[in-house]
Amino acid sequence: MAGIFQRASKLRTALRCLSLRCSLSSTAGTRLSPADPYGPFLSCLSSVPSVVSARGLHAGADGPEPSPAAAPERRSFSRVTPEDLAFFRKVLPGRTITDPDLLESSNVDWLRSVRGSSEVLLRPQTTEEVSQILSYCNSRNLAINTQGGNTGLVSGSVPVYDEIILSTALMNNVLSFDSISGILTCQAGCVLENLSLYLEDRDYIMPLDLGSKGSCHIGGNVATNAGGLRLLRYGSLHGTVLGVEVVLADGRVLDCLTTLRKDNTGYDLKHLFIGSEGTLGVITAVSVLCPRKPKSVNVVFLGCETFEQLLQTFQLCRGMLGEILSAFEFLDSECMRLLNTHLKISNPISDCPFYVVIETSGSDATHDGEKLHNFLEEAMTSSFIADGTVATEDSKIKALWSLRERVTEALTHEGYTYKYDVSLPVDRIYQMVTDMREHLGDRAKSVVGYGHAMVTST
Amino acid sequence: MAGIFQRASKLRTALRCLSLRCSLSSTAGTRLSPADPYGPFLSCLSSVPSVVSARGLHAGADGPEPSPAAAPERRSFSRVTPEDLAFFRKVLPGRTITDPDLLESSNVDWLRSVRGSSEVLLRPQTTEEVSQILSYCNSRNLAINTQGGNTGLVSGSVPVYDEIILSTALMNNVLSFDSISGILTCQAGCVLENLSLYLEDRDYIMPLDLGSKGSCHIGGNVATNAGGLRLLRYGSLHGTVLGVEVVLADGRVLDCLTTLRKDNTGYDLKHLFIGSEGTLGVITAVSVLCPRKPKSVNVVFLGCETFEQLLQTFQLCRGMLGEILSAFEFLDSECMRLLNTHLKISNPISDCPFYVVIETSGSDATHDGEKLHNFLEEAMTSSFIADGTVATEDSKIKALWSLRERVTEALTHEGYTYKYDVSLPVDRIYQMVTDMREHLGDRAKSVVGYGHAMVTST
Repeated sequence: MAGIFQRASKLRTALRCLSLRCSLSSTAGTRLSPADPYGPFLSCLSSVPSVVSARGLHAGADGPEPSPAAAPERRSFSRVTPEDLAFFRKVLPGRTITDPDLLESSNVDWLRSVRGSSEVLLRPQTTEEVSQILSYCNSRNLAINTQGGNTGLVSGSVPVYDEIILSTALMNNVLSFDSISGILTCQAGCVLENLSLYLEDRDYIMPLDLGSKGSCHIGGNVATNAGGLRLLRYGSLHGTVLGVEVVLADGRVLDCLTTLRKDNTGYDLKHLFIGSEGTLGVITAVSVLCPRKPKSVNVVFLGCETFEQLLQTFQLCRGMLGEILSAFEFLDSECMRLLNTHLKISNPISDCPFYVVIETSGSDATHDGEKLHNFLEEAMTSSFIADGTVATEDSKIKALWSLRERVTEALTHEGYTYKYDVSLPVDRIYQMVTDMREHLGDRAKSVVGYGHAMVTST
Repeated sequence: MAGIFQRASKLRTALRCLSLRCSLSSTAGTRLSPADPYGPFLSCLSSVPSVVSARGLHAGADGPEPSPAAAPERRSFSRVTPEDLAFFRKVLPGRTITDPDLLESSNVDWLRSVRGSSEVLLRPQTTEEVSQILSYCNSRNLAINTQGGNTGLVSGSVPVYDEIILSTALMNNVLSFDSISGILTCQAGCVLENLSLYLEDRDYIMPLDLGSKGSCHIGGNVATNAGGLRLLRYGSLHGTVLGVEVVLADGRVLDCLTTLRKDNTGYDLKHLFIGSEGTLGVITAVSVLCPRKPKSVNVVFLGCETFEQLLQTFQLCRGMLGEILSAFEFLDSECMRLLNTHLKISNPISDCPFYVVIETSGSDATHDGEKLHNFLEEAMTSSFIADGTVATEDSKIKALWSLRERVTEALTHEGYTYKYDVSLPVDRIYQMVTDMREHLGDRAKSVVGYGHAMVTST
């Protein structure tokens, strides 16, 4: 069985009004066109571009070798020697992993679409240890792949060839939290959901939320400038990350870990690292400005007959929900079919071509309820929506959210997944999915569209 | 009469909970300690640091020369020659100003505390013209001082010696506005208030607002990373500026003028220019994500007996006004005295040691009114506030805002003003003002404190 060995490439075009995640599951045995093998891939390298030699097969697949044209060349990095391992074991006693079985899960990405062949996994606990490792690897010309929760969907979190994997998994301490300002400072390996739970007890929330929250690390979120489900309300990490601590390729530690809400002293270097995908250094700690936990949260799940009606619903709720609108996500009926088939998640409303998840977060349950009620009434009167259900209880809110959050998981059960993350003007975004369906025909088992709207602050 | 010739330096310490602007007017004839003469001062220079020779006197003052220790040295930049002027006149016909009378207002800062001696003012209209000027000046080793609205309070907008002044005043065109996404793209010389008026007609607002809005340029706002009165609600310019176009010192044009809400392609270089004060290049255009115009705005002006009560009021309104809180500003009774004395602005409530301006912006007037009413009732019941008045009409809202916005103007009428912009933890912020009063004693006519609270997103 042949696999897809190239990574999914991120395609961004005109932009503006709506971001859609378009995924398609290829039929087994079909290989799609190769994508750029470099990019965010090679994580933090020791000043010199990385090298590779034999990467490419779908994880677990035993099909044909990829064509040389599709595989990047392994550049002239050193190979790990017993002396190197001795050094790592001295710095990280008991945390230098070489057992292939233990390395397996770190060599394969979450979608199981790419596999590296790293033979060393390093698990530092402190910035100082990261600094020692990078300094040493730089002097030895050894390539490194930084890895957080390994939840990325574009194959950036696993090695291409034999790069050393530097895991942030044991760097998972909260360093400080100020309950007046809401500023959290923590190590890069803290799992997003753990941070959310930590903050919830203190009446705050994280400014970002992702479907992968149970595994992804905050350091990886920052390194990839993850957007997620709360971007509509709380903005991007460029606004909410106040500081970062970074270890550069040669081991120097760059301390931009300010907790100033606004800091105009010198150039704001931290932004270079937000979204740099590990190419400029390893993020070891971050400080984040966290919003207050909203007193009132509502989630509605709606069905629309056409994509045009879905967009009308979006415009209407922007105006009527205003400052309490905190998320607007959508999926199509094909996503719903995969959720039903593979995850046994049932549709809570009647079947529709399109579905919408809308979340409100506010400080007054009565006011929020009234705004939501008025919006739903208007949307129904205008025939923008065909059916819907509302949740105010935590368990039902979670259930409705899972319809959107678990789409990616459902796709992995359908077959090899080839995934694009695209931004297009609102009126043309879904056309891409229908065009792709037509273009691929029988070659794809299914082509689906889902994603979020993120037009403007409200 | 001796003047203050050094620039006010920005002092930022621990930070966190409250930003306070501490101004003091020195008694005539007293000179305070010299401050760092470099910094954001020298704007965009042609790769080499600038030089100066005879700067220092307070504008219009005829007192003693500043001591050599206090004046920075003029470095070895070229002097403008007739050949240079001929070039400028060819590129900018009718917009190359050398008349000393016309240059006067560009050589003196808004506070009238520093004076440069530039003999050339250039007024380009296009990015291409800026590029030609910088390329030429770079090859000729001529120093340049970029100037926007010349409203800065730290003397960064005027030359130190004879730098050429490059004004953005004629680069004042809106390039595009998308009424669906709320993304505005405009030239750097657009006056903030003009942009606000432009947007108001289109049901949007600018994400920042400053007391100097009638004169300041958006390019200068971005170059200095201005915070302003809406930071509490809409965040910093790092979040709301989507793109910049910059001309580098050698004339190359760097186009980062994306209008993507989230753009993860490559490093996000624009952030280097936000707050770089012109040292990395001249910002010629920006794109900004603008929020929807709120349907309902309320402003309250309150009086508190102690600073402690003022802080309790702040904590209370954060909780009770939640997502509709858009500004929290304060001033002390000494500010009020200066407003009365110099600008004939009368106190709308009874005399108190401290005053607060709170603004709400929301999508539902009834809900906002209820939230505000509940907050005020609770604040009065708890004796946090002694007196207050509420405004919902535009003219009264403007009048209440002017109590805060015109403090800086009132100070200029009191004498030479020495101004700090300081961030300190909330419980110690006003102590600085009382300490300073004690420290300076008779040497200062008045020491005042005013500023904004900007704890966390709500």
